[in-house]
Amino acid sequence: MRILHHWPLDPFSRQVRLALAEKGLEIDTRLEKPWSNPESILAVNPAGTLPVLVDDREGARLTVCESGPVLAYLEEAYPEPALMPKGVAERAEMRRLMSWFDRKYDGEVNAYLLHEKLEKRAQGLGAPDPAMLRLGREHLRGHLDYLSGLLEARDGLAGPRYTLADVVAAAHLSCADYLGDVPWEEFEPVRAWYARVKCRPAFRALLADRLPGLEPASHYADLDF
Amino acid sequence: MRILHHWPLDPFSRQVRLALAEKGLEIDTRLEKPWSNPESILAVNPAGTLPVLVDDREGARLTVCESGPVLAYLEEAYPEPALMPKGVAERAEMRRLMSWFDRKYDGEVNAYLLHEKLEKRAQGLGAPDPAMLRLGREHLRGHLDYLSGLLEARDGLAGPRYTLADVVAAAHLSCADYLGDVPWEEFEPVRAWYARVKCRPAFRALLADRLPGLEPASHYADLDF
Repeated sequence: MRILHHWPLDPFSRQVRLALAEKGLEIDTRLEKPWSNPESILAVNPAGTLPVLVDDREGARLTVCESGPVLAYLEEAYPEPALMPKGVAERAEMRRLMSWFDRKYDGEVNAYLLHEKLEKRAQGLGAPDPAMLRLGREHLRGHLDYLSGLLEARDGLAGPRYTLADVVAAAHLSCADYLGDVPWEEFEPVRAWYARVKCRPAFRALLADRLPGLEPASHYADLDF
Repeated sequence: MRILHHWPLDPFSRQVRLALAEKGLEIDTRLEKPWSNPESILAVNPAGTLPVLVDDREGARLTVCESGPVLAYLEEAYPEPALMPKGVAERAEMRRLMSWFDRKYDGEVNAYLLHEKLEKRAQGLGAPDPAMLRLGREHLRGHLDYLSGLLEARDGLAGPRYTLADVVAAAHLSCADYLGDVPWEEFEPVRAWYARVKCRPAFRALLADRLPGLEPASHYADLDF
């Protein structure tokens, strides 16, 4: 048995769903609400954070908490197909980009757009603050600009092969895209990269996500956008 | 040549200094001020964050940004002595604790104590807010209580051997300890664990740190505290 505790529009949960699907690992899912540390999450992760993977493997049950540890665990426990390059330098660059998204992008974009549009709504904290939304979108443009430069200068995001850097970046951007906040047409290199990622079979489940009462942007599930 | 860009009281920089010293790797250090994204940091890391390791190895120069990627890089490039256990389950637990400190502890303790006492001071943003300090100390007690429970229930923090979980936890707690905010006497299992860590030769350079104009707590460098 393999259970993933997750929330559909949580970018950290999405990373793990993508990696599990790339590796062809089937899961039962448990939908959790990440705000307010519910008992069901605390029962498996004392930090109260998502995602949490509970994996029965080789006769033992293992609980792995949070996206970074889960992604590393999946590479170690299920090495094929590999989502990490072999070389030390390539791995360092992949991890730099993962950290970029999980720390910098998360604090500069998710903390505004997802907080205002999803968390406040889910917790009954009122309507989004337009000033905060403006700031989040401005930061998002800065990130898209940086990614455009990277993608123009090299073959692929962290190198020619599909790695956890693509997984992490796509998971984060897909949440902003659900909300219709990504100005793809202004950042063609990023659009072309995301179009390639979006076509992967592992992405299908994410494109089928629908939050009750909050439809995604009309192009969200289109492979040609 | 091996250069570490760091700030002495940055818990993320401290993790890397500890790991480098455990592995017996000599470094030149560059003191940086982590607030305000100075040009000297941006020149090596576009995210503007610390620490950054610039390492000449096997004829190539590699720049590795942020503590998580640097710690992983050091394990891959300089595997001995190992700071990670061999088993998949042990590694998952080690990474859970690393993530606990780098995300949860950082947001609940450092964001109050280090921000109020160090960052505000360094940036001329005025005196610490007593309410914020109280909140940070309250959160710190919660973390010490959680660690006490762990250390009472098992042999070592993430297991019997010294790992990156010890490195990361000690790096974070050592900053609060510099400021005199850790009530060690109330959490004996944590005190005993920290006393063992503090005795390691790799810890010496951290105990010699002195911020100009801000002396550490009187017991900070004592091995018997």
